[in-house]
Amino acid sequence: MKVSQLGEFGLIDLLANLIEKGGKKGEAWSNLVIGIGDDAAVWRCQSGTQIATVDALVQDVHFKLGGISWEDLGWKSLAINVSDIAAMGGVPKYALVSLAVPDTTESEDIVSMYRGMLDLAGRHGIAIVGGNVSRAPLVAISITLLGEEGPSGNLLRRSAAKPGDKVAVTGHLGGAAAGLRVLTQGLTAEGFSFKQSFARPVPRVNEGLLLVENGVRAAIDLSDGLVSDIGHVCRASSLGARINVDDLPLAQGLKESYPDYATEWGLSGGEDYELLFTAPSRIVRAVGVALDCPVTVVGEMIMDPNSRVVLVDKAGNPFSLRQRGWDHFTRENHGA
Amino acid sequence: MKVSQLGEFGLIDLLANLIEKGGKKGEAWSNLVIGIGDDAAVWRCQSGTQIATVDALVQDVHFKLGGISWEDLGWKSLAINVSDIAAMGGVPKYALVSLAVPDTTESEDIVSMYRGMLDLAGRHGIAIVGGNVSRAPLVAISITLLGEEGPSGNLLRRSAAKPGDKVAVTGHLGGAAAGLRVLTQGLTAEGFSFKQSFARPVPRVNEGLLLVENGVRAAIDLSDGLVSDIGHVCRASSLGARINVDDLPLAQGLKESYPDYATEWGLSGGEDYELLFTAPSRIVRAVGVALDCPVTVVGEMIMDPNSRVVLVDKAGNPFSLRQRGWDHFTRENHGA
Repeated sequence: MKVSQLGEFGLIDLLANLIEKGGKKGEAWSNLVIGIGDDAAVWRCQSGTQIATVDALVQDVHFKLGGISWEDLGWKSLAINVSDIAAMGGVPKYALVSLAVPDTTESEDIVSMYRGMLDLAGRHGIAIVGGNVSRAPLVAISITLLGEEGPSGNLLRRSAAKPGDKVAVTGHLGGAAAGLRVLTQGLTAEGFSFKQSFARPVPRVNEGLLLVENGVRAAIDLSDGLVSDIGHVCRASSLGARINVDDLPLAQGLKESYPDYATEWGLSGGEDYELLFTAPSRIVRAVGVALDCPVTVVGEMIMDPNSRVVLVDKAGNPFSLRQRGWDHFTRENHGA
Repeated sequence: MKVSQLGEFGLIDLLANLIEKGGKKGEAWSNLVIGIGDDAAVWRCQSGTQIATVDALVQDVHFKLGGISWEDLGWKSLAINVSDIAAMGGVPKYALVSLAVPDTTESEDIVSMYRGMLDLAGRHGIAIVGGNVSRAPLVAISITLLGEEGPSGNLLRRSAAKPGDKVAVTGHLGGAAAGLRVLTQGLTAEGFSFKQSFARPVPRVNEGLLLVENGVRAAIDLSDGLVSDIGHVCRASSLGARINVDDLPLAQGLKESYPDYATEWGLSGGEDYELLFTAPSRIVRAVGVALDCPVTVVGEMIMDPNSRVVLVDKAGNPFSLRQRGWDHFTRENHGA
């Protein structure tokens, strides 16, 4: 079966099963706390726990040269990984960069890319400790980021949602999808903040730490889109979720600029790199006070052995979504 | 300047300088023991030291589909990283796989690739803890491997060579280059062991640990080719090296099968993934007894502020090499 039929998540499940059947013998396996299937992997070492994640940006799949600047590309390639560590409630520490570029690439462009990367790295005290450069017919940046747990010694997991938990998100949604549109159609003054949401996402590291401190245990970062990502939480927690589409904290000006797309983009646009978490109401309220950014309840976790994500409007009527989220291979409906 | 003019190692130097100038502030940077410029990065944690490396295989640059089998590709993509940990004298532990494939790829082929990877992982107790899958117009596999120091608590560094040290290598050389030729020209019965050298390199983990235990402090793995790789040791140690080309332990049958290429391939063919190390004679002799594989002295480290690699034949005459080793961008002479 071609991966286009199997889909990204079908392929990941297939490989996870293969690894599972491999026997997983030895000390490394026995120290593993979280393997494939969360935002990052976690294993025990004598000094605590190590968190590790890898994510890639591929030309013409995730970005177009000439659309995003090289400096933004560097920032974003690290930011998407920092966001995965944030979604575990961890602190990012060490990065390794695997870079593939055509031999016609200007070295100044690569330097600009590293400047963007170092800008974000500097804000979080991340050390870029190594990497690899390879020739390829297109640009691809794959970064592995290592992190550690925060002072509380707890983590955020996709599998820790409980029935009755409220589903909440940090910040605003849909801005990155609008930014991609802006980059495709040409940048306007009004489009600048959307473009920034797409090209320079700000990972929620401090917010992730505060979630853990306030007693949150379940979270994911919004990379594929809210519906797809809450679907990952549902499957990992063996629960369903009901999302109130009229409660989405849409990016400022999104409804005015793109009335036909705003809600869709908030639900499935992806790449906003906000945190989605689930917790009892009182904890969500405490988080709302503790965090500097907006915290918005958008739904709740419900019992459902089929792990469905139900979308309703404020009148309680079902909401139908055209595109559920990002899958690398099928590029069509998936998720819930 | 285009990276084709700057070259792979020029680009790496440029980026390392950029990172250096970035200020390197914070706890992560202060815990860093070895950054860019060795086989792997090393940092201190409370439990000892963490070793990390990343290396990639890109279709039509490192391999051709239809040439190497998917299972061998999986093995090799992990082996080249295990070899980097071995070259530090470390123990490989945790791997993260960043995979890019066209959406027309058969999932069975990806499963075969993972089987090859898991075969090698199982032999070393390596846990494959996570990864990322992305669509791309070609196949690229980038693996990050984390390891730990061995029981002795010492490491092998490119920068630790001393004047007068003998230069020695494990195993045999040139087999992988012959294997690539065999795969290009069609496999014959005599070519099988060369093909294996190219497609299923066996990383020298145990040998790396025994080198450390026996007092060796300087090593590198032979990925780019002996002349290029000893050049890295020379620059890192601010020394030169003299290599006796008639002393190379060429792969069995190489001279008979490819008389015109055997010595060249031993010097610059690359991808043999043997260990090259430098040490005083008595330590090299002890290593020769301790290791199960052949250990061959091929030259010695000499004082040279310009870090040149000098090639001589057994009569002491200079030997001229057509191609010095692998550079991703220039694809021409480089190194010494």
